[in-house]
Amino acid sequence: MSSLKDVGERQLIKNIRKVIRPAPAVQGTEDDAAVLKSKGDTVVCSDIVTFDRHRPKGMTSEQFGWTAAAVNFSDLAAMGAKPTGIVVSLAMPDDMDESELYDMMSGIDQCAEYCETAVIGGDTKPGPGVISCTAVGDMEGRKPMMRNGANPGDIIAVTGSLGGPAAGFAAIENGIDAEDAIFSLMTPVPMIKEGIALSGCGKVTSCIDLSDGLATAANTICEQSRCGLEIVWEFLPISPDVDDVCLETKGNEEDMVLNWGGEYELMFTFPKEDIEEVQKTGIFFSIIGHITNDDGAYLLKNDEKRRMDNGRY
Amino acid sequence: MSSLKDVGERQLIKNIRKVIRPAPAVQGTEDDAAVLKSKGDTVVCSDIVTFDRHRPKGMTSEQFGWTAAAVNFSDLAAMGAKPTGIVVSLAMPDDMDESELYDMMSGIDQCAEYCETAVIGGDTKPGPGVISCTAVGDMEGRKPMMRNGANPGDIIAVTGSLGGPAAGFAAIENGIDAEDAIFSLMTPVPMIKEGIALSGCGKVTSCIDLSDGLATAANTICEQSRCGLEIVWEFLPISPDVDDVCLETKGNEEDMVLNWGGEYELMFTFPKEDIEEVQKTGIFFSIIGHITNDDGAYLLKNDEKRRMDNGRY
Repeated sequence: MSSLKDVGERQLIKNIRKVIRPAPAVQGTEDDAAVLKSKGDTVVCSDIVTFDRHRPKGMTSEQFGWTAAAVNFSDLAAMGAKPTGIVVSLAMPDDMDESELYDMMSGIDQCAEYCETAVIGGDTKPGPGVISCTAVGDMEGRKPMMRNGANPGDIIAVTGSLGGPAAGFAAIENGIDAEDAIFSLMTPVPMIKEGIALSGCGKVTSCIDLSDGLATAANTICEQSRCGLEIVWEFLPISPDVDDVCLETKGNEEDMVLNWGGEYELMFTFPKEDIEEVQKTGIFFSIIGHITNDDGAYLLKNDEKRRMDNGRY
Repeated sequence: MSSLKDVGERQLIKNIRKVIRPAPAVQGTEDDAAVLKSKGDTVVCSDIVTFDRHRPKGMTSEQFGWTAAAVNFSDLAAMGAKPTGIVVSLAMPDDMDESELYDMMSGIDQCAEYCETAVIGGDTKPGPGVISCTAVGDMEGRKPMMRNGANPGDIIAVTGSLGGPAAGFAAIENGIDAEDAIFSLMTPVPMIKEGIALSGCGKVTSCIDLSDGLATAANTICEQSRCGLEIVWEFLPISPDVDDVCLETKGNEEDMVLNWGGEYELMFTFPKEDIEEVQKTGIFFSIIGHITNDDGAYLLKNDEKRRMDNGRY
């Protein structure tokens, strides 16, 4: 295998095409732009991941690629959009082995396949190890779930369980065997089906993913919806790994659950009286609190109420 | 002013919002994804520009930002899409002055305004000086102009004039005063209206922008449309600056006109019998050659016919 410098950008792009699945429903993948059939409003989002910041020890190139795609699909999921494509811009070091680049693209492609879509374009230039993806989705006639629609009295819920990726990170740092937690860190799963079902039921008033952690997500909803909220610690669906890893590392459970990012569950709100409609979606969720007339995000824990600041993301 | 490192990413994004125009027609700019109303098929394209490669001597930060946006809007123009938004990912050096970043964003915003659209999202991370933009457009019911539809007998035409940016580059390198040429290099103009009009007339069989130069564009059309083509040197609408600069620098006129990139005119093809319909668009264009049954792109010059290879892009 050669380094990227030796292969050249044109040839690299040709080789990448052989590694990833073609985009069957898309016109123009040989053009500089791709054309997507639209059924409803178009949703677009973009996120950069870097070697420096988003590649924990032991993460393979494939997993790094998967993650770069997943953070974007997760933003579509939070809106309730169906993914229709992802555009990938790579800026990778000249001396990187070309096989590593193909592994990354393969990871991106696998995540796209999981989300029932494909890579529809991209570009590659020399750089420091940066993947910038832009995901495109289609609302298919559903109303997008925004961050500014929560109302006092609404119930707050989350999909799945919390703290797994944080526990995975601590496990790696401390050499602890915690396979599930480490997997959840290395292979974040965008909640596409959940987002589509939730937007489809028409009852959700706001939604956000937990990629910046629960505390930051809670504060964001308060800011955008101009409301307050209370989350009840005892209600939180904490991943069993958090307990295990905290015991072994003397880690801080609350910190792992509230202040960590890298988590891709959805937090959403809906009027109390609509709970049956939301349950009918078949989506598994836990109720964790409610929206208030207050200002700011609060945690109720051990009969104490205190303000939650933004997490570290 | 502080360096980017001192400002922090969250604050930077807040400050950037103050520098650029808000996106009025878009829901969700405070969310991680933006929602665009769709009238027709969605067109998406992405391109990276880097300090290293795309910032000629003397280019201001504003012009660099403009260029980063223009290369993407130009890809939409070649399809005939109306721009609906642009997503901007920045990876800039930590020690860069924050004002430089705002100037770049302002340049991007100005180009978006010129194209009657706005910045709809983005992200910023530390990096080596890379702007990766993704432009989104709407076909509004028109058929996209692809690269694979040219047919033998079709006429080949280009909008505007050729070689200006190459002449501008040579002028700077040699300290020659050639204001127009330098301006065309520093402020490339995407042919949005031209693209919309051309796709709207329904007669164009293929279209490509000249961002990689005329020779590369010609070869791309041949490959994608599985045809040959002949371009007649004497027909080419060469910018007057090319002559002037070549005289002073002993530069190679043919090289400037054929092998240079950084040019954003559109090259397009249509059946000979449809010329009147194409002229009715009101778009200024020059006929420069025709599509053949042959294989590969040829130049006719001084009664000699020779193969054109790809340019340096």
